Amino acid sequence: MADVGLPAIVTILTTLAEVAEPMSENAPLKGIFTPNIVPLDAQGEINEAELRRYVDWLIERGVHGLYPNGSTGEFTRFTAEERRRIIEIIADHAGDRVPILAGAAEANTRETIRACEHYHDLGVRAVAIVAPFYYKLSPAGVYAYFKEIADNSPIDVTLYNIPMFASPIDVPTVQRLAEECPRVAAIKDSSGDLPHMMRMISAVRPVRPDFAFLTGWDAALLPMILLGCDGGTNATSGVVPEITRKLYDLTTSMQLDEARELQYRLLTLFDAMILSSEFPEGFRAALRLRGINTGCGRQPQSDVQQAALGTLSDQLQCLLAGEGFTEEPVGGCPVGDSVDPDQVARIVRTVVGELKKQGIN
Amino acid sequence: MADVGLPAIVTILTTLAEVAEPMSENAPLKGIFTPNIVPLDAQGEINEAELRRYVDWLIERGVHGLYPNGSTGEFTRFTAEERRRIIEIIADHAGDRVPILAGAAEANTRETIRACEHYHDLGVRAVAIVAPFYYKLSPAGVYAYFKEIADNSPIDVTLYNIPMFASPIDVPTVQRLAEECPRVAAIKDSSGDLPHMMRMISAVRPVRPDFAFLTGWDAALLPMILLGCDGGTNATSGVVPEITRKLYDLTTSMQLDEARELQYRLLTLFDAMILSSEFPEGFRAALRLRGINTGCGRQPQSDVQQAALGTLSDQLQCLLAGEGFTEEPVGGCPVGDSVDPDQVARIVRTVVGELKKQGIN
Amino acid sequence: MADVGLPAIVTILTTLAEVAEPMSENAPLKGIFTPNIVPLDAQGEINEAELRRYVDWLIERGVHGLYPNGSTGEFTRFTAEERRRIIEIIADHAGDRVPILAGAAEANTRETIRACEHYHDLGVRAVAIVAPFYYKLSPAGVYAYFKEIADNSPIDVTLYNIPMFASPIDVPTVQRLAEECPRVAAIKDSSGDLPHMMRMISAVRPVRPDFAFLTGWDAALLPMILLGCDGGTNATSGVVPEITRKLYDLTTSMQLDEARELQYRLLTLFDAMILSSEFPEGFRAALRLRGINTGCGRQPQSDVQQAALGTLSDQLQCLLAGEGFTEEPVGGCPVGDSVDPDQVARIVRTVVGELKKQGIN
Amino acid sequence: MADVGLPAIVTILTTLAEVAEPMSENAPLKGIFTPNIVPLDAQGEINEAELRRYVDWLIERGVHGLYPNGSTGEFTRFTAEERRRIIEIIADHAGDRVPILAGAAEANTRETIRACEHYHDLGVRAVAIVAPFYYKLSPAGVYAYFKEIADNSPIDVTLYNIPMFASPIDVPTVQRLAEECPRVAAIKDSSGDLPHMMRMISAVRPVRPDFAFLTGWDAALLPMILLGCDGGTNATSGVVPEITRKLYDLTTSMQLDEARELQYRLLTLFDAMILSSEFPEGFRAALRLRGINTGCGRQPQSDVQQAALGTLSDQLQCLLAGEGFTEEPVGGCPVGDSVDPDQVARIVRTVVGELKKQGIN
Repeated sequence: MADVGLPAIVTILTTLAEVAEPMSENAPLKGIFTPNIVPLDAQGEINEAELRRYVDWLIERGVHGLYPNGSTGEFTRFTAEERRRIIEIIADHAGDRVPILAGAAEANTRETIRACEHYHDLGVRAVAIVAPFYYKLSPAGVYAYFKEIADNSPIDVTLYNIPMFASPIDVPTVQRLAEECPRVAAIKDSSGDLPHMMRMISAVRPVRPDFAFLTGWDAALLPMILLGCDGGTNATSGVVPEITRKLYDLTTSMQLDEARELQYRLLTLFDAMILSSEFPEGFRAALRLRGINTGCGRQPQSDVQQAALGTLSDQLQCLLAGEGFTEEPVGGCPVGDSVDPDQVARIVRTVVGELKKQGIN
Repeated sequence: MADVGLPAIVTILTTLAEVAEPMSENAPLKGIFTPNIVPLDAQGEINEAELRRYVDWLIERGVHGLYPNGSTGEFTRFTAEERRRIIEIIADHAGDRVPILAGAAEANTRETIRACEHYHDLGVRAVAIVAPFYYKLSPAGVYAYFKEIADNSPIDVTLYNIPMFASPIDVPTVQRLAEECPRVAAIKDSSGDLPHMMRMISAVRPVRPDFAFLTGWDAALLPMILLGCDGGTNATSGVVPEITRKLYDLTTSMQLDEARELQYRLLTLFDAMILSSEFPEGFRAALRLRGINTGCGRQPQSDVQQAALGTLSDQLQCLLAGEGFTEEPVGGCPVGDSVDPDQVARIVRTVVGELKKQGIN
Repeated sequence: MADVGLPAIVTILTTLAEVAEPMSENAPLKGIFTPNIVPLDAQGEINEAELRRYVDWLIERGVHGLYPNGSTGEFTRFTAEERRRIIEIIADHAGDRVPILAGAAEANTRETIRACEHYHDLGVRAVAIVAPFYYKLSPAGVYAYFKEIADNSPIDVTLYNIPMFASPIDVPTVQRLAEECPRVAAIKDSSGDLPHMMRMISAVRPVRPDFAFLTGWDAALLPMILLGCDGGTNATSGVVPEITRKLYDLTTSMQLDEARELQYRLLTLFDAMILSSEFPEGFRAALRLRGINTGCGRQPQSDVQQAALGTLSDQLQCLLAGEGFTEEPVGGCPVGDSVDPDQVARIVRTVVGELKKQGIN
Repeated sequence: MADVGLPAIVTILTTLAEVAEPMSENAPLKGIFTPNIVPLDAQGEINEAELRRYVDWLIERGVHGLYPNGSTGEFTRFTAEERRRIIEIIADHAGDRVPILAGAAEANTRETIRACEHYHDLGVRAVAIVAPFYYKLSPAGVYAYFKEIADNSPIDVTLYNIPMFASPIDVPTVQRLAEECPRVAAIKDSSGDLPHMMRMISAVRPVRPDFAFLTGWDAALLPMILLGCDGGTNATSGVVPEITRKLYDLTTSMQLDEARELQYRLLTLFDAMILSSEFPEGFRAALRLRGINTGCGRQPQSDVQQAALGTLSDQLQCLLAGEGFTEEPVGGCPVGDSVDPDQVARIVRTVVGELKKQGIN
């Protein structure tokens, strides 16, 4: 760059920019994309019929798109062949009804690029590629990885940032990739960190108005949308698509009092599914309660874990019954204002203590 | 509890609850409480005159309350005597103009209770007590610590959760303390974790409608307020009280488009002050630019750090000038749409690359 | 168990123990197993000829065994087919010269068990299976995973604990698996945590004297061996097998003064290879200097990273030259007692300062 | 420095070095320094008589020195006045019998320097100063902090690195302080990270042969000493000084078989005291069993914690009885080879399973 003056560069740039600006040719990703669980049969194989039925079920309940081979979809627990098969089934079955964001991370950049090519041929809308995992890469390594893929992909690439599982993608890296790679068209961020999302939006939106920001953290969907996100890839939308979709609609139409109340209810459901078991077993258990025959997951569960999942399933059934999605379990559910003996004991203790202090008792 | 039936307990409870319910007698804390920096003189002693002037400056600019001896106020870097002196000066000078939330953590529960008593005598509204630090305590230990203090404090206690510096206060602990201790009347949470705040609100508000939730994370003030917080203890309000206060007002009056824009601007200021230097040096540097004679902090700064603070100060001056609070520095400021040579080079590289791919070049 | 008295159980146990005790039929793993890098050709494919040459090179230099498809071997960056091919080549080429510990982790337990069967057919000594990664599993989940594999593996299984990359395997889990699964015959621990290793040895050795403990942390090889480990799977042994092997020999023969000095030298080499670049690029660069044509790795390197690797390579060449393994680089190397201007400046500053204090200057 | 050539500097340096080299005038710290707990009376005040008795008890059992106001000594839970009082009592009572390393960290550098001066007047051998805590400082900030203290201290300063509680002190910072500050004469490292200790020794010993390295991690005392440490500040030495001292002696005299066995036994004791309770409650409970009337600590314990401490105390009593230091508790102790029903059940299950596989059953 040393031999060219800055004004000259600006002139060149302006000219070039008119013929080819770094921008995807497609409309930005928008709305709720469901990271679907893959139903398995009794032999642990992909249950294709049930997967197709699940796709219909989701589309009928209003999700804007599908996101197979995400973390909820346990992409790492399938073989490379199975991952391709999953996309083929879903692309075939969804047809033109909803766009598909296909998880495409494979063992290395070459295999990933091949997956991008294949999914492009299948007509999916975009791919999502998680940052390198197992090894924790520096920002420079994360950049180089996505740059090589983006420069060779025939299809829009969504960066997938999930720092609790994979190398983090920091703001300068997102910005640089957005500036340099027209194919990098979106980020899916599952950190749940709202200021981090705002920093990315601040850094990227001015130079790439077509770039989409999707949140993977259901617990903060309302504020994420309100502060500028285009949508979400939310595991709850695979189980209670009615709620996740409605929360999105209420927020984008600024009906915030109802949205707030729904966000609190979604948080309760989300916490029940994500905190009490090995991810994504809670989502699988809840989905079974909604009538999808998920089968068992591939990660073996110990006796202790299976017992815990049984308890969780009853709790989930009560929560889903409260939302009108299922019947209550046989034993019934605790009512909201029921008396918890422990809590009573604590309150009595406190009250008596206070009375004593005040000399009443 | 074994010998008393549940219905009997409920009857007792209902009766008792009528004479003494676990609730603070005061109105909940509300609005923006400023965690003030303490100006020091050339000898490193508390600059009382400037501290009084700073209190006036803050109140004139609309903060709802003051919060001395917080993390921004570097309470750990003062002696116990100095901490008391700081509260005495501020309580005396603020008078009835705004309520004071006084940081009261001392070496152990006995010393802390003594501080609570003293601050109560001074007429402060409530104390804030950070969870035990240095040693990382379990939830049971955190509970026992606050329980002992709350049972012996003559003044409302605000729990202070700042997990990056001190033992975390988890949701069940907040809930239990709120239920058992009428004196525990608020939590100040500086985790910046929005779902965590929502979980606390869900758990505590039904049983303690008088309990206040304050966020210490300026970067998420809008969504925190929107989802139910009563206010904030925000370091930015010590430097740009006009903006933090306005953001609070816009949010509570649901003028969300303007609030969103202001939240993004506040994030830029917050990041500049918090990310590029040893906390709270960035806030001190910015406050000097606003005309408060802060003096130097007590933590020595190496040559490298001092040089970095100089650079930061210029950036801060540009940001503050952009908000109309100061003049630009002598060398001027980069304009928003100015040309960054690095960025140009990257864009040109990209554009040329794209053209090549498309066979144009 | 409720209907059988304890004495009866003990009698049954004693009888049973005589016919089948939970113990591997093989001698424990022992010595230095090299986690080999896989040479690639210009197209990024496995360079079989060079891999075979590298196997000879390692065996000639005294390593006790080979450990393909470990973290150093970048098993995640190869396809399932390539991972099998790597084991086939190495098993074929090593023949009976040294035992092979084959990394066998695949996408799920079924695929992993198939790999165990295949590697058993190839005659490898044992497999090593890393704890589940990407998803972070609880101890119960880690247990269930290894239990299912061990119950179905025809070959000895080495647990592979590397908490910086994968779900941690805690002491009770190791103990339980060792007690319940005769096929679980060893652990490879790369945490570098010496007390953790001692805790495992304390818990397992009394019940499974045949169980082997291998450390993957070269920086602590001497103390690990001294405190009871049977050997190591050490990345340095792929680059300077002469040193790693000698350190093992000196330690096991209790020549500790020489061992200590060698451990310090190995630490210097280890740090240079592991701290200054994306793992395992530093090891690859050093191996090239020893004459193995490694080719480039599959993880793309940015310009910045490539420049850093160039600098590192010169430093490594100096270190290897100091050990007599290579020539010095063209520009020469800094001699140990050479004068570093920065250091001189600092020392002079200090000395002058001291003199001033003492009134001499 | 720009105007002076390197050879000139070297000449100056050599000359200067003869009159004043950066080195402490004292012999290096060496051996086991006990971080003593402070006995409290029923009112929670310092129990001076028992503290004096405890000092005698420790010295009689062979510890090389005393280390009051360390983490085990809960320095943060005493007031500044109490911390001074503790040193005064111990310095007075120990007299010339053993050297004292006095914890001297106060609220800021000025207060800390005053403490250094006071402790120097009392005749203590050196001070130990923990890195700044609560705020997490960068290496530059840690450097500036210690530099200011060291330049103004009349007494040797020991850096205290305990990254789980305070800002970490990295290797370059230790090296720079050792080079620039003659008063910085030692480091106490409680990270338990053996390679980290070796890196510090490699970096500092060549330029400061008088610099002492002390480990605060009892679980690795043997290997730390073997690899070059000068001694330790070990909490176990406050409870079982006989064992910690003997382990030191066996290691320094290279009786490593016995040392290894003792290190494993010390690890069992250490783990029991440190893992099952809030630090340092386990050490306090064990010390009571040895006949020192510690009183209760200042951190309140919840009911749950107190119950857990009761159970722990029985376990500790069994361990201490096993070492011959106490009687067994009234209920007796499990013998090492006793039958644990759970374990039997697991073993039987395994054995039967194996027999089934082999077609025997």
